[in-house]
Amino acid sequence: MEAVASQNAGRVMDGPTNPMVTPLLTDLYQFTMAYAYWKAGKHNERAVFDLYFRKNPFGGEFTVFAGLEECIKLIANFKLTEEEVSFIHKSLPGSCEEGFLNYLREIDCSDVEVYAISEGTVVFPKVPLLRLEGPVAVVQLLETPVLNLVNFASLVTTNAARHRLVAGQSKMLFEFGLRRAQGPDGAIGASKYCYIGGFDATRWFADNVAAGRLFGIPLRGTHSHAFVSSFMSPDEILERSLCSSDGSSTCEDFVTLVHSWLSKIQWLKSLGGIFGETNQSELAAFISYALAFPNNFLALVDTYDVIRSGVPNFCAVALALSDLGYRAVGIRLDSGDLAYLSSEARKIFHTIEKELGVPGFGKMIITASNDLNEETLDAIRKQGHEVDCFGIGTYLVTCYAQAALGCVFKLVEINNQPRIKLSEDVSKVGERILCRHPFSESKRAYVVPKRVEELLKCYWPGKSGRSSEYPSSPWKSKVREELPALKDIRDHCIKQLEQMRPDHIRRLNPTPYKVSVSAKLYDFIHFLWLNEAPVGELQ
Amino acid sequence: MEAVASQNAGRVMDGPTNPMVTPLLTDLYQFTMAYAYWKAGKHNERAVFDLYFRKNPFGGEFTVFAGLEECIKLIANFKLTEEEVSFIHKSLPGSCEEGFLNYLREIDCSDVEVYAISEGTVVFPKVPLLRLEGPVAVVQLLETPVLNLVNFASLVTTNAARHRLVAGQSKMLFEFGLRRAQGPDGAIGASKYCYIGGFDATRWFADNVAAGRLFGIPLRGTHSHAFVSSFMSPDEILERSLCSSDGSSTCEDFVTLVHSWLSKIQWLKSLGGIFGETNQSELAAFISYALAFPNNFLALVDTYDVIRSGVPNFCAVALALSDLGYRAVGIRLDSGDLAYLSSEARKIFHTIEKELGVPGFGKMIITASNDLNEETLDAIRKQGHEVDCFGIGTYLVTCYAQAALGCVFKLVEINNQPRIKLSEDVSKVGERILCRHPFSESKRAYVVPKRVEELLKCYWPGKSGRSSEYPSSPWKSKVREELPALKDIRDHCIKQLEQMRPDHIRRLNPTPYKVSVSAKLYDFIHFLWLNEAPVGELQ
Repeated sequence: MEAVASQNAGRVMDGPTNPMVTPLLTDLYQFTMAYAYWKAGKHNERAVFDLYFRKNPFGGEFTVFAGLEECIKLIANFKLTEEEVSFIHKSLPGSCEEGFLNYLREIDCSDVEVYAISEGTVVFPKVPLLRLEGPVAVVQLLETPVLNLVNFASLVTTNAARHRLVAGQSKMLFEFGLRRAQGPDGAIGASKYCYIGGFDATRWFADNVAAGRLFGIPLRGTHSHAFVSSFMSPDEILERSLCSSDGSSTCEDFVTLVHSWLSKIQWLKSLGGIFGETNQSELAAFISYALAFPNNFLALVDTYDVIRSGVPNFCAVALALSDLGYRAVGIRLDSGDLAYLSSEARKIFHTIEKELGVPGFGKMIITASNDLNEETLDAIRKQGHEVDCFGIGTYLVTCYAQAALGCVFKLVEINNQPRIKLSEDVSKVGERILCRHPFSESKRAYVVPKRVEELLKCYWPGKSGRSSEYPSSPWKSKVREELPALKDIRDHCIKQLEQMRPDHIRRLNPTPYKVSVSAKLYDFIHFLWLNEAPVGELQ
Repeated sequence: MEAVASQNAGRVMDGPTNPMVTPLLTDLYQFTMAYAYWKAGKHNERAVFDLYFRKNPFGGEFTVFAGLEECIKLIANFKLTEEEVSFIHKSLPGSCEEGFLNYLREIDCSDVEVYAISEGTVVFPKVPLLRLEGPVAVVQLLETPVLNLVNFASLVTTNAARHRLVAGQSKMLFEFGLRRAQGPDGAIGASKYCYIGGFDATRWFADNVAAGRLFGIPLRGTHSHAFVSSFMSPDEILERSLCSSDGSSTCEDFVTLVHSWLSKIQWLKSLGGIFGETNQSELAAFISYALAFPNNFLALVDTYDVIRSGVPNFCAVALALSDLGYRAVGIRLDSGDLAYLSSEARKIFHTIEKELGVPGFGKMIITASNDLNEETLDAIRKQGHEVDCFGIGTYLVTCYAQAALGCVFKLVEINNQPRIKLSEDVSKVGERILCRHPFSESKRAYVVPKRVEELLKCYWPGKSGRSSEYPSSPWKSKVREELPALKDIRDHCIKQLEQMRPDHIRRLNPTPYKVSVSAKLYDFIHFLWLNEAPVGELQ
């Protein structure tokens, strides 16, 4: 522990979640450029880079910005080790001067300032999400890792938000894509960002344990088809006793109790004799799982036949548990027509509640999974269903509908020379402003702001005392914004989505959200444009 | 270092590349099931699970199996830490018995055996790629991480192999998808697996440094558009001298030398005066980059205008370098009509070689990038082009055309009771065998094997001495197969693809590769089928 503490001395915050996120998580050409900048004596020229995207993903008209915390953690701990420096030395084409290696040994991000939109904010194309300002060579080294950390994070958060919008607010949504994700932290990252995008914290099944540990997302579990088929029959269950919930009594033969309930429901007239003999290996698996988790019995009911075997087996075990004061959680469907099967299962639960007088039995939780995506969630909703919780995997975490977001990182200023830069322009509430389309002179309108928000906040101010040398722009706040807790990022995201006009966020044919600039900013952009056109450039 | 050494005592091999790949990289329900197995006294029952997929990705008829090495590294180091055990304890729904925690503290994979197809082998649907045999509770814990490690690895290797097939063997292919990948090791993994799938080791540009360090893939670099726009004009270059390649002389003003070459080529009649005044910030950037890397000058020529500015600027710098005994590498195109621009650039290089008598100038390397994928590579090839190297990013590493492979992990045997298991049946070369479609009795044919290969090899034999208790099946070899070097996996993959009939691997409408079984195996499957139909199951 002491070794770790001394290693961390001077660290202002923890490093990135994935220990593989180091200064070497970059393209080699960032280091070759750094050498060329250094050779040209330009490496310390002050540059400003903006990170933004050009098109919303998934055919939608909004994106949720995420990945900021990981970027700041990388920047706060950006320092090359001696091993890394010597690797870069070996990797550079041709030889490089020793002075450059010494330079690499010295660099960190104390001269870098980071301004960003809050994580979890709803954002739009061409709006800077992240602005990095600092020595050009250092900021270039950050380009690739920062793009990597923001691109997938924003994409999967947006995907989660879209799934939430289609499923509706009343349903519970669980991410369980670990097995199909694009590598280990394709999965761990996805768990975190799906939570930010509005997925639920309390999970009943198929959870990613590593993500739960890292981000404090509470976890629950169920069982798989293999668990069911690993049993042969209830005869093999040797330890059959179960203590009642309050500890006052013990049922010596829980298996026989389940069997007696199974006979009872098999002869319920109102169910019309739809149950015959149920599958015995399934029944054995359910009993064993209930004996292990009497308070958290959630059964996967589709290994053989949902309505004729899975649901009655579940009901029999749940009723036996009820006798002992336990309350079963519910069932999970992983195949078939989820809308139909959930409705049929619900009818059976209601019938049992009514006929056998078991209060609350009708409200058993029905969870559903099986290659769900926006389209299938929408179809199930239109068909009418009784599912309470959806488990979404592959299509969610791999962003199957669009596997990449194309954020770019562009130089907008060097040595206080703007290179076409879209500045901030904060107006006051209630003041009428002439707004214009950023690139089309004829499109304009007067607008009275309902709400004014400063978009870019300072998340990494660099070292103090440097601000006199490079005077800050008026829009810049050097007060460092704290990184919010995961839960607060999630709340912010949900609130942002609630504030959106529904037609901007609907799934089919959404209305584009218009980003305008004030007349003052429009004139400034025009001035820059003319000023920036390279002399002698031939089109 | 000593602490690390003692931690690693007893380790048979290094852990997985990503330190986040631990026993906790799994779904929580694997731990809830482990508890239920333990409670039922079933946890040590010997189970066999097969990992396979049901459909080839990308509309193709082949898949390349990858990810094995990472699986074996996980399995070899599978051990829960005390911190992990207590996290699982907190995460399990309800309380669990202390005995289970002790069990968790003890488990490792010394009782697990792993059989697998060699990494880099061309594989087909429903054929077991990986077979895990061991205590049912332990093997279940491995299900999720093993699926995670194989699914993306096989998908991206297959994607790389498909891109290689379309681009042709004579082109160099570079992966540069780090900035758009699904998280940090979506990128690092992709670099490794694209290399296995046939991408090139020597890279000229935009490389993933971390992947190069981890897997020993040699790296090269170039520069970006930001590097070009960070310069204003050659006047700002202060250090203008360049020593000749052999060290015999020094050019005191390399900038003036470049300018004189630029004037010369501007007036070359055979180029028809297509160059006017070139962009000066671009020229400054090229000169600076050449001064830093005189032996490895590769210029990005599309910041302003490829043919009127980028290419002549490059040629002038390359000719000046040539005067001093250096040989420029070439150009990179990152936008526009790559087929047309590469052909035009090649003409200019040839003209310069001929008119100015510079041998080899026509052979400058032309690299191209810009959202390339199988379709655009195919289109460029059909159009005719002069590109030597392609850099492929987003579409390659995110597997944009199909972002997930759906491998499954199925219980095939428990306690020596087969649960529909497809066994191996190794035949001898030259012996005629009656082969049948695995599931259709009428489809059959006599086949004389041209080549017989044993598919599953033992990569993790478990602890010795256990084989008498559980006698090995005849197909099993307990001789442990060594994990091959990355280069050997790549060679194996390339050889496998060369052996495929071209119509199975072509991009459009490939012929399905037929997997048949021998008559003997067919009868065995039929027997199992009847034997396995659960008693009392209602369809």
